[in-house]
Amino acid sequence: MNKLCNLLGVEHPIIQAGMVWCSGWELASACSNSGALGVIGSGSMYPEILDEHIAKCKAATSMPFGVNIPLLYPDIDKHLESIFKHKVPVVITSAGNPAKLTGLLKERGVIVFHVVSSARFAKKAEDAGVDGVIAEGFEAGGHNGREETTSLCLIPQVRQAVQIPVVAAGGIGSGSAMFAAMALGADGVQIGSRFVASEESSAHLNFKKRVIAAAEGDTVLTLKELAPVRLIKNSFYQDVLDACQSGAQKAELAALLGRGRAKKGMFEGDLDQGELEIGQVSAQIKNLMPAKSIIDEILSDFRATQVRMNKIKV
Amino acid sequence: MNKLCNLLGVEHPIIQAGMVWCSGWELASACSNSGALGVIGSGSMYPEILDEHIAKCKAATSMPFGVNIPLLYPDIDKHLESIFKHKVPVVITSAGNPAKLTGLLKERGVIVFHVVSSARFAKKAEDAGVDGVIAEGFEAGGHNGREETTSLCLIPQVRQAVQIPVVAAGGIGSGSAMFAAMALGADGVQIGSRFVASEESSAHLNFKKRVIAAAEGDTVLTLKELAPVRLIKNSFYQDVLDACQSGAQKAELAALLGRGRAKKGMFEGDLDQGELEIGQVSAQIKNLMPAKSIIDEILSDFRATQVRMNKIKV
Repeated sequence: MNKLCNLLGVEHPIIQAGMVWCSGWELASACSNSGALGVIGSGSMYPEILDEHIAKCKAATSMPFGVNIPLLYPDIDKHLESIFKHKVPVVITSAGNPAKLTGLLKERGVIVFHVVSSARFAKKAEDAGVDGVIAEGFEAGGHNGREETTSLCLIPQVRQAVQIPVVAAGGIGSGSAMFAAMALGADGVQIGSRFVASEESSAHLNFKKRVIAAAEGDTVLTLKELAPVRLIKNSFYQDVLDACQSGAQKAELAALLGRGRAKKGMFEGDLDQGELEIGQVSAQIKNLMPAKSIIDEILSDFRATQVRMNKIKV
Repeated sequence: MNKLCNLLGVEHPIIQAGMVWCSGWELASACSNSGALGVIGSGSMYPEILDEHIAKCKAATSMPFGVNIPLLYPDIDKHLESIFKHKVPVVITSAGNPAKLTGLLKERGVIVFHVVSSARFAKKAEDAGVDGVIAEGFEAGGHNGREETTSLCLIPQVRQAVQIPVVAAGGIGSGSAMFAAMALGADGVQIGSRFVASEESSAHLNFKKRVIAAAEGDTVLTLKELAPVRLIKNSFYQDVLDACQSGAQKAELAALLGRGRAKKGMFEGDLDQGELEIGQVSAQIKNLMPAKSIIDEILSDFRATQVRMNKIKV
């Protein structure tokens, strides 16, 4: 039990990342019931859908859970209504200014974490009053920072910049990676990609299988002109690349991307024409398991790594 | 003493990276005398200059040292003459096909390591008969792979792909990062950027000071059209970027780059018009120290991290 566990009221310092189209109430409650913090990804949900997921998650677990809110989301007020109504204990904000919601959430007794891609943004989040930051490296799936700082470099820099708990994200899918992240100064980890390939994930089975089949080099950080995102290279990606190389403007790229592409790929399973957001660590994911087995395996690997590393003499 | 130390005949599992314009005999011998493997970077040396550096390094240390050879270098045969004449114990090849020199080097009793950016290339190097691989992540300075795999993801993948020793490179400038890399499966680390800011480095003082002043986000992996290289963003970089964006072809970019730019920047200290190759970890480098102090600090930090990490319960 470290300070992150105490703050969140969880047994293990692991946060399951809130991910669009992949993390509904089934995954979140399964993770919370396994001693981690389960998180519902609200970015792909209409307000009434989020309300339903929160209600079902509460019914399925007596343990703390959270909701991830991308701050660019258009219906934030309605999302907040559900969050307050159901007394969701933790909110993780991302993709925007942490000053926007932190004060309001803290007034209502919500624990707030904010996702950052640099030490500078981490300091800004701490100044805005968040309880902790999630430092997300270049290798992470989905939307990402412009500095391209990798987790190995980002974690120590964020650790040095702030006093509040630091959670490492990006490239972590095993206990040894979790151990490495904590050696670098993190108080815990946020794990996304590994949970996409879980039984409880709401991702389409086609997408889960594609993640398991992913090899090194299959993902790329792209769409830097618009909002950088890491995804699996496929026909849709090639179309985006061609549009960029022929000098497409932001509006044109935005139209090509659309909100529908992520749903088409990750939720409806169209592996060619959909957007498939996943991290580099997908190359290491080899099977589909229940969330509890994933967490147990990570903890067991963490402890084995700890024993191995304690024996090394340099 | 692990298997990497036994193989190289060194006390600590640390290789000082051979770097163009920065690592001559002074740095290599200082590192070898401090229990690491010092390496002369031959990529910026004419054959007679390399011969002189090897002779001086041998005179300055009785410990093993190595020479780094970029396989694209035009005068490799002459470099090899010096390496064989002086019985240099270790050669690290990079930027090319490991099958090219490994057989010849092994016949002459040289220990061979090859730098790779993917598990696939690591397997290829093992098949070519190298003694070990250096797995270099996206965050590393200088020339780099196209897959953009970060050290956090690359190390476990390379570890799984080969049986020979794996050395982690890229993003490592502290003992906690070295500890993290070994937790991920590396047998040791190669450290470059941190040694640029050493007293014994042959880098121009202007460049050393620029490295110390570097903040997060100051470096970028660029020149992907030609050969990806991570460098500090400056006027020269802006010129390259403008040329790329106006559709410059390979020949044009090659002319703009030239071999002279790296010398101008790193050796002659022209921070505006020169090419300044350095890793993301430069943001964490805050002082100029003797190489021995750097190594001692890294080892001390490693051991402190080991004690801290052994206490954690998850």
